[in-house]
Amino acid sequence: MIEVGIIGGGRIGQVHATSIFTRVPNAHVKTLADEYLNENIEKFAAANGVGQCVKDYHEILNDPEIDAVLICTPTPTHTPISIEAIEAGKNVFCEKPIDHEIENINKVIEALKGSKVKYQVGFNRRFDHNFKAVKQASKDGKVGKTEMITIQSRDPEPPPIDYVKISGGIFLDMMIHDFDMARFLADCEPVEVYAEGAVLVDKAIGEAGDVDTALVTMRMEDGSLVSISNSRRAAYGYDQQAEIFGSKGAVKCGNDASSQAVLSDENGVTAEKPLFFFLERYMDAYADEIKQFIDAVENDTDTPVNVMDGLEAVRIGIAATKSCKEHRPVKMSEI
Amino acid sequence: MIEVGIIGGGRIGQVHATSIFTRVPNAHVKTLADEYLNENIEKFAAANGVGQCVKDYHEILNDPEIDAVLICTPTPTHTPISIEAIEAGKNVFCEKPIDHEIENINKVIEALKGSKVKYQVGFNRRFDHNFKAVKQASKDGKVGKTEMITIQSRDPEPPPIDYVKISGGIFLDMMIHDFDMARFLADCEPVEVYAEGAVLVDKAIGEAGDVDTALVTMRMEDGSLVSISNSRRAAYGYDQQAEIFGSKGAVKCGNDASSQAVLSDENGVTAEKPLFFFLERYMDAYADEIKQFIDAVENDTDTPVNVMDGLEAVRIGIAATKSCKEHRPVKMSEI
Amino acid sequence: MIEVGIIGGGRIGQVHATSIFTRVPNAHVKTLADEYLNENIEKFAAANGVGQCVKDYHEILNDPEIDAVLICTPTPTHTPISIEAIEAGKNVFCEKPIDHEIENINKVIEALKGSKVKYQVGFNRRFDHNFKAVKQASKDGKVGKTEMITIQSRDPEPPPIDYVKISGGIFLDMMIHDFDMARFLADCEPVEVYAEGAVLVDKAIGEAGDVDTALVTMRMEDGSLVSISNSRRAAYGYDQQAEIFGSKGAVKCGNDASSQAVLSDENGVTAEKPLFFFLERYMDAYADEIKQFIDAVENDTDTPVNVMDGLEAVRIGIAATKSCKEHRPVKMSEI
Amino acid sequence: MIEVGIIGGGRIGQVHATSIFTRVPNAHVKTLADEYLNENIEKFAAANGVGQCVKDYHEILNDPEIDAVLICTPTPTHTPISIEAIEAGKNVFCEKPIDHEIENINKVIEALKGSKVKYQVGFNRRFDHNFKAVKQASKDGKVGKTEMITIQSRDPEPPPIDYVKISGGIFLDMMIHDFDMARFLADCEPVEVYAEGAVLVDKAIGEAGDVDTALVTMRMEDGSLVSISNSRRAAYGYDQQAEIFGSKGAVKCGNDASSQAVLSDENGVTAEKPLFFFLERYMDAYADEIKQFIDAVENDTDTPVNVMDGLEAVRIGIAATKSCKEHRPVKMSEI
Repeated sequence: MIEVGIIGGGRIGQVHATSIFTRVPNAHVKTLADEYLNENIEKFAAANGVGQCVKDYHEILNDPEIDAVLICTPTPTHTPISIEAIEAGKNVFCEKPIDHEIENINKVIEALKGSKVKYQVGFNRRFDHNFKAVKQASKDGKVGKTEMITIQSRDPEPPPIDYVKISGGIFLDMMIHDFDMARFLADCEPVEVYAEGAVLVDKAIGEAGDVDTALVTMRMEDGSLVSISNSRRAAYGYDQQAEIFGSKGAVKCGNDASSQAVLSDENGVTAEKPLFFFLERYMDAYADEIKQFIDAVENDTDTPVNVMDGLEAVRIGIAATKSCKEHRPVKMSEI
Repeated sequence: MIEVGIIGGGRIGQVHATSIFTRVPNAHVKTLADEYLNENIEKFAAANGVGQCVKDYHEILNDPEIDAVLICTPTPTHTPISIEAIEAGKNVFCEKPIDHEIENINKVIEALKGSKVKYQVGFNRRFDHNFKAVKQASKDGKVGKTEMITIQSRDPEPPPIDYVKISGGIFLDMMIHDFDMARFLADCEPVEVYAEGAVLVDKAIGEAGDVDTALVTMRMEDGSLVSISNSRRAAYGYDQQAEIFGSKGAVKCGNDASSQAVLSDENGVTAEKPLFFFLERYMDAYADEIKQFIDAVENDTDTPVNVMDGLEAVRIGIAATKSCKEHRPVKMSEI
Repeated sequence: MIEVGIIGGGRIGQVHATSIFTRVPNAHVKTLADEYLNENIEKFAAANGVGQCVKDYHEILNDPEIDAVLICTPTPTHTPISIEAIEAGKNVFCEKPIDHEIENINKVIEALKGSKVKYQVGFNRRFDHNFKAVKQASKDGKVGKTEMITIQSRDPEPPPIDYVKISGGIFLDMMIHDFDMARFLADCEPVEVYAEGAVLVDKAIGEAGDVDTALVTMRMEDGSLVSISNSRRAAYGYDQQAEIFGSKGAVKCGNDASSQAVLSDENGVTAEKPLFFFLERYMDAYADEIKQFIDAVENDTDTPVNVMDGLEAVRIGIAATKSCKEHRPVKMSEI
Repeated sequence: MIEVGIIGGGRIGQVHATSIFTRVPNAHVKTLADEYLNENIEKFAAANGVGQCVKDYHEILNDPEIDAVLICTPTPTHTPISIEAIEAGKNVFCEKPIDHEIENINKVIEALKGSKVKYQVGFNRRFDHNFKAVKQASKDGKVGKTEMITIQSRDPEPPPIDYVKISGGIFLDMMIHDFDMARFLADCEPVEVYAEGAVLVDKAIGEAGDVDTALVTMRMEDGSLVSISNSRRAAYGYDQQAEIFGSKGAVKCGNDASSQAVLSDENGVTAEKPLFFFLERYMDAYADEIKQFIDAVENDTDTPVNVMDGLEAVRIGIAATKSCKEHRPVKMSEI
């Protein structure tokens, strides 16, 4: 049984706690730490098999019984807590992105050198049944040699403007998932990135120095092209699609809906909208990433998404941000 | 060039005239005969390459230049005109059904004995791209041995009540197409029929002694089962589907729509309704059945739907009508 | 916290134990009883939060701490255990069918008279997200007045022939789910049933006195018609569909697949097969039925599927069996 | 009756001749001119109602009975013949692109000044039922304000390498249709174009100085973004899709297939591939564009695609070619 400590009792910390309680039989959350611990968190913890709640995450790092920590705090704290946890000999699962600054991520990489702890980054979409099936079809040779990857991500609605301001911008906050997905599906690295952005959803996002609609073209090291589009708002829900097009065909995934029911009436033939909420769409993926992290810890195997994956997605995000600002294609070697 | 005479200048006669004009290069409509010839028909004829219009169809039968006639008059006239035409040595395409009475159809069969003329019955759905694809998949062995055939036909709206009264009833007027489709897809004959009917769409249909909703179960001579459902009204358009289920899988066809456009909005993911009007849905099928009739005449080959097909569909319709009235399964041998 | 005893530690008993452990926070399985208790069951129980395992289910019935029992034993034992449990004051969830004999079910009904215990029958499909969405659309008036219900159930492969022999026949073993679904979707009772059966999948099933392919027509008390088709084997997986057709349109549900991935290649445009295994397709439905049973116990409300639902489905199954044997429509009033 | 002359008796000239013969009742092809007139063309002409065949197209331009000419010759001749035809007072339908050089197109524009003749360019996709439905939904306000347009075009197989060499390059030969589609769907002009190209399908295309895979990003004058992707080869057929995404949702169209048949078997649930051949996919669109041209001539109304549309698509093609070569975003004002 792997004993786990969760640092950060907000939405995503709770998702992971529930996953472990209900779907990861070889793990147990001994301690949940949250600086702003309150009754709601304690109630949640009690109902989800969490051993105890504390305010100071050092109680987790100092607990010799705890094997693994999940870092679910705001992004700026990821790097320092990661380093502390690694130094305390804990296996680490860290939410994405590790950091907005490459030099900080490099410090984490440095800390991992010579250490035996596992480190996994929370790119949950790699564990989604749809994206996995797309990747698998490609791996099985069904589409031949990859020529173009197309990824489309649309959020149901924009985040609060206060969040936008500290988010690092759409490329590091939202499209970072798609950069990771591109690497996952392409099985190689980008060499150049061109980004266009526009403010079409909410002027306040533009006033905050960000864009809400974006289109990125990447050239990969194997010569294939990648197209990624993002919008902060889709009236019909959370839209997450990807396609690999290759010499033998194309494999593509659409969205999940809450049912397969289809209504035929005078208005047309209407299926349900995609699931609206990301926690609903990716519920199983969240459970699976934690399960695989725990298994990697238990069996001493590689984590499925490692610190270098965490670094590369941020590097691409920085390249895209630069491209969008400087209005020119940016080589990855510049970053 | 096959010279054609069309008897009956109503809707379906005009459909065939247009098909020949625009899509059957080896045929020409020399004469169109209509008892109630009027300016509209003449105008239509002029615009669609018809040589001349007459009132009396005997001008067609007596014209030695005419090779083939299309009988597009009301059902009660099909038998006498068929026999006259056969005796005049004309190849005959006759709209469905040949007749509501088996003994009348038998007279046509009798007339055909010893004659060299071709005879085709207007079961247009056999020529529809969707139903043909279902049949072809089965013929190609893709579903293995047929075990169950399911056919669903729903009209967009009921016919005028005056038509219902002389229609012969839903089983001989509407479901007759599905009985033919069942024979076409099964490649064998029914041995027993059980029919249920209900008046759910319009009470006036019940008062006219008919039903507007019907469900038929047939046992085929190869042991497979067939389910046919009919409704006189579907709010979303003209719905025509069929499935063959067998030992290796199932092949099924849905409907055509006017475009592949799909709208995703707050109401759901909405595709277009099926085409509403049967002439639109089956436009290509109507052209193809005439083309194949003309080709059979020209090349002296068998017609794709012959007088026995016309007879069998009517026999099943009579069995279903009897079953519905007597409330018991009816053996085909009783008919 | 509702304390639960599970009687029968086979496949379905384990499904319910896991559901309670992972998804029903207000219940706990204190005891699992299985006459043939073995190491595997004990191992499973330990991993799924079950308090203890015993051989004799009377330990459950005699335990004053246990509020509710789940009867997951073979069908012939459902009635006697139900009655014992009711008399012991336990709330009962009983797997379907309660019994193959109406007089036995009546004994359960008798036992429930004057008792305050809850009784729920395991018609899990009512809790499936797809069927629920179909029912909901109808309830919301989206299809208008119901005119025809079509239900199609195809198992991926036939059960072992030894099971077929004691199964009660396809109408009581397999189609019973569809009879319940018809009542659920129609919100009214059948008045007459006509059943056709055929042996097309496996001759041994015929030799065992059963059929493997069946087609049932029902007339409901509101005048609407129902068509149900069953096959014991579908090469492409577990196929479960239903449609309600009414005056304003139709609502229909298809199957779930393991992903939304679609491959376009030289063979066509290929989506995934339906989920093959019923436990996979209905995993969430199984959890939900137990959750609602526990909630009914906790809140003293009606169970969503009661003993009369259990009775009616069996009555229809008996009527269908009789119709198929006697080759005539059977009125429900005969049963 | 509008009398028509067709200049160029190749594939597309024949398509238009057939369309006029079978689907444009108010027009007649009096003369077909082809420099390399041969027996096949004469045979085709005879079967499709063409009055006469000649070698020298001046016979058409000098014929006072001819109202309209269709220019179906190779691209380099479009400009000179257009100008001659305009000067001869003929209404002109010219295949796309008018020319690869802007200055040549300007000469045509010059020739049209002060003239009353109609001029239409052959962007047939605007007349496709699917793309029209997408445009219509947007026009009807169903997707709100346009934010992103995505267009995907994949040919079933690359053209012969000799054609590639004189084609003007993928952006002027293939993607020019998509540039026109973008303008059609967006109802406004691009202000900047960024193009990436790759040689992934056939090295010989690269050796000919062209690319076979391309990804273009455009910023439109209303601030919206456009993404266009092209491949010269799709193993599954001719793939033509477009989406308009806006503030209220998205409307998208897929491809047509030869039937709606769907096979479910052990390999999955397989629908038919998109139609392989562009003449098949766009047969109705070709007929409709000619019909609308003839109607514009007859009724003295504007043509649906005019010379400025022809110019703009070429300008964008030149901008994209420049962007791809110079590896930077190119402003339309540079062209």
